Amino acid sequence: MAPEPATGIGSYDPRKYRLLSFHDHVWKFQNGEDTPRAYLERCLEAVAASNEEVKAWAYLNTDRARAMADAATKRHADGRPLSAVDGMPIGIKDIMETADMPTEQGSPLFAGWRGGRDCAAVAALREAGAVIVGKTVTTEFAATEPRGTCNPWDASRTPGGSSSGSAAAVGIGMVPAALGSQVIGSIIRPASYCGAVGYKPSYGALNRGGSFDAFSQSCTGVLAASLADIWAVARAISARAGGDPGHPGLTGPTDAPPARKPRRVALLETAGWDAATDEAKEALAAACDRLKAADIDIVDRRTDDAVAAVEEAIAAAVSLSRRINAWEGRWPLNTYARDRDRAQLSRPSQERLDDANRMTQEEYQGLLAERRRVREIYAALKERCDACVTLSATGAAPRGLASTGNPIFTVPTSLLGIPTLSLPVLRAEGLPLGLQLIGFADSDAALFAAAASVLELFPD
Amino acid sequence: MAPEPATGIGSYDPRKYRLLSFHDHVWKFQNGEDTPRAYLERCLEAVAASNEEVKAWAYLNTDRARAMADAATKRHADGRPLSAVDGMPIGIKDIMETADMPTEQGSPLFAGWRGGRDCAAVAALREAGAVIVGKTVTTEFAATEPRGTCNPWDASRTPGGSSSGSAAAVGIGMVPAALGSQVIGSIIRPASYCGAVGYKPSYGALNRGGSFDAFSQSCTGVLAASLADIWAVARAISARAGGDPGHPGLTGPTDAPPARKPRRVALLETAGWDAATDEAKEALAAACDRLKAADIDIVDRRTDDAVAAVEEAIAAAVSLSRRINAWEGRWPLNTYARDRDRAQLSRPSQERLDDANRMTQEEYQGLLAERRRVREIYAALKERCDACVTLSATGAAPRGLASTGNPIFTVPTSLLGIPTLSLPVLRAEGLPLGLQLIGFADSDAALFAAAASVLELFPD
Repeated sequence: MAPEPATGIGSYDPRKYRLLSFHDHVWKFQNGEDTPRAYLERCLEAVAASNEEVKAWAYLNTDRARAMADAATKRHADGRPLSAVDGMPIGIKDIMETADMPTEQGSPLFAGWRGGRDCAAVAALREAGAVIVGKTVTTEFAATEPRGTCNPWDASRTPGGSSSGSAAAVGIGMVPAALGSQVIGSIIRPASYCGAVGYKPSYGALNRGGSFDAFSQSCTGVLAASLADIWAVARAISARAGGDPGHPGLTGPTDAPPARKPRRVALLETAGWDAATDEAKEALAAACDRLKAADIDIVDRRTDDAVAAVEEAIAAAVSLSRRINAWEGRWPLNTYARDRDRAQLSRPSQERLDDANRMTQEEYQGLLAERRRVREIYAALKERCDACVTLSATGAAPRGLASTGNPIFTVPTSLLGIPTLSLPVLRAEGLPLGLQLIGFADSDAALFAAAASVLELFPD
Repeated sequence: MAPEPATGIGSYDPRKYRLLSFHDHVWKFQNGEDTPRAYLERCLEAVAASNEEVKAWAYLNTDRARAMADAATKRHADGRPLSAVDGMPIGIKDIMETADMPTEQGSPLFAGWRGGRDCAAVAALREAGAVIVGKTVTTEFAATEPRGTCNPWDASRTPGGSSSGSAAAVGIGMVPAALGSQVIGSIIRPASYCGAVGYKPSYGALNRGGSFDAFSQSCTGVLAASLADIWAVARAISARAGGDPGHPGLTGPTDAPPARKPRRVALLETAGWDAATDEAKEALAAACDRLKAADIDIVDRRTDDAVAAVEEAIAAAVSLSRRINAWEGRWPLNTYARDRDRAQLSRPSQERLDDANRMTQEEYQGLLAERRRVREIYAALKERCDACVTLSATGAAPRGLASTGNPIFTVPTSLLGIPTLSLPVLRAEGLPLGLQLIGFADSDAALFAAAASVLELFPD
């Protein structure tokens, strides 16, 4: 499903180590051809081969992972796996608490910090038999400041952020799946840059308890080698930990929803259009041609008034989201600056706090009202279309590690609280580029069904 | 406002130490008659006189409190107080993170636990100049297991829970205000038993970031010596930290809303009626007579169909709330039991986890749907009434410290996500009993205005 790598890193050849999706291996555990422990060892081999250069991991817990894989191996041998993720090696973004590892949030203020418990998602995954391999590198507080992870397809480029390590680890096949989170573009953008499938759920779909992530449009999500793996991980969590308290949580079948071809898809240019490279736009156009050739109707701002209304409504998504996040991020940045050490906050975090300190509750209330308005306009599109499609990023991962790239294509779904998938089926500069397929709030299973159908159009 | 104590504790005479509300003292800071430091010293004197017996505090930070009070004293002397709570000594329920104190959650699993930061509410209060005195005792994880606090009016009785220490400390005048939280009855019940004013806001009104409290019908709230103090504390928080992310947060004037007499009030018996003592019912009836004498119309289930519909809708509030809480409390109890030490969970917590492990996501979704239905029925009452009134508890604080008492009168407002106040104007067994005045979602200021008017009817 993913494009072939353009550039091997050092002596590492991603083609050699790239894993099949976990889902494609499970049947071998059943007939004894393979075991979770052996699968894990191949993952750890990929880690050993490339992590020194890619720097995807903040912490590796290989001894415990091996013990968990051995337990899973026994369950599979007994024909009694606990779930579809029993034995699946998984990386955890380092903003999420883990009982057996530090949670450092990409901040020197949290170096070695241990809360002593698992977050809700990790607790659920352990109950489901998953093998928690380690903590993946996050930008500082899951915001903008990078923490050294390289793009596994070209180490001179960013992996994107803030789920940098999760995307890089999955993109190079160190693990079949990893947890991420997105409040601006932190799952879809790095998934696009690293060639992973990325899933940002509907707001509230996966319980964020114990993740340092309280933003009102943020989500815990999944990056993985396949749609099937993403679904298995997400459902393993929601069935055991639910969604955020008060939300129904992700629902749907145990196995990934079967492909269902959308009848009509809206092409969204978004405010990102001017920033997209010509090559990226051409790749998207070619993808749309494939959809049309499969009798999927494509409408856009020029041909459909409802799409035009959405485009207009989301035009200011970036500034609106950033203002909402600024107010909501006032705490805990204020206590970090006052009670810990302001100098150990990155300059962007300091500036974000300064911005927040100039805001008022009344301004925030106005922003929420505007967000509700935009959400209503988008929700009306459900009557017209089965999904929306756009780019996941403006192009291939940009060169340099000082920035995690432009998130402009990813912000609308964060603002709207709707589910979205980045499918690694496009290319730019010979590197991965995601096709973003977007659904409607709390209809995540329908989005997966549409995505499975779209993927069938990209067999290469 | 509060009734006189029936019983002094040991050598302690509550009448001697009972503080005026902070609000009633601030003017003396302005003319130099009093200072925040002197005010704090009187609080600490009350602590010294009675805490050994009452056991309201899990941690006291007197040195830092004195430093904060000195800073507030200087600001007042300069005529530049930061807010209406500048210099106000406040206690913090020990489920809320504090940068300079442990947060133990009433659990041996968290003995000495320090997260290194302030929760959002405490960060806001510090910014507003409040003097954080210490952490008040909570039942285990703010649930049912008591942790030794006694009722300051009669040490052989429970102070209620889970905000046990906050209620006891305010009730005996150790501090004018303390933070609490309520998911079942954890503010209103102990406020009733200890003779404090208690305020559980609309759901989402005060930011819970950094409080170990993620339940979908829980709130951070305030217990205090007066309505004015509660309002000052709550607005100091919401203006600086907002509500829960995505919520507008408590809004209204800076000073407590002026009294505004309600025209019509609904008397709710609730499912608690059969459990209430005759004396408590008579006290409520006498209170209603005062309202009627002031030309406030009182309707009830027998005289008004909309009230009857509400009574029917909330009849199963306790079981519905407990099931919702069970699912939502599955995490973190599951990681505490697995990764820490199950034996160090109280038996009720272990049973709660066992219950939760038998639940499914689908059952939870059904409970949420039922809660939505009940909330819609209650919301319709707003067309008919300005507020509702009922008891805060079945009677005076029961004897014994093994239970925190029956929360049955407090559950409906938790389930409904609506604001409520316990006003310490009734008596039973010569001890405090709260009159509960209940408002409508996100109309907290209107409830305060009605409560101020009702309090005028109880000058004794």
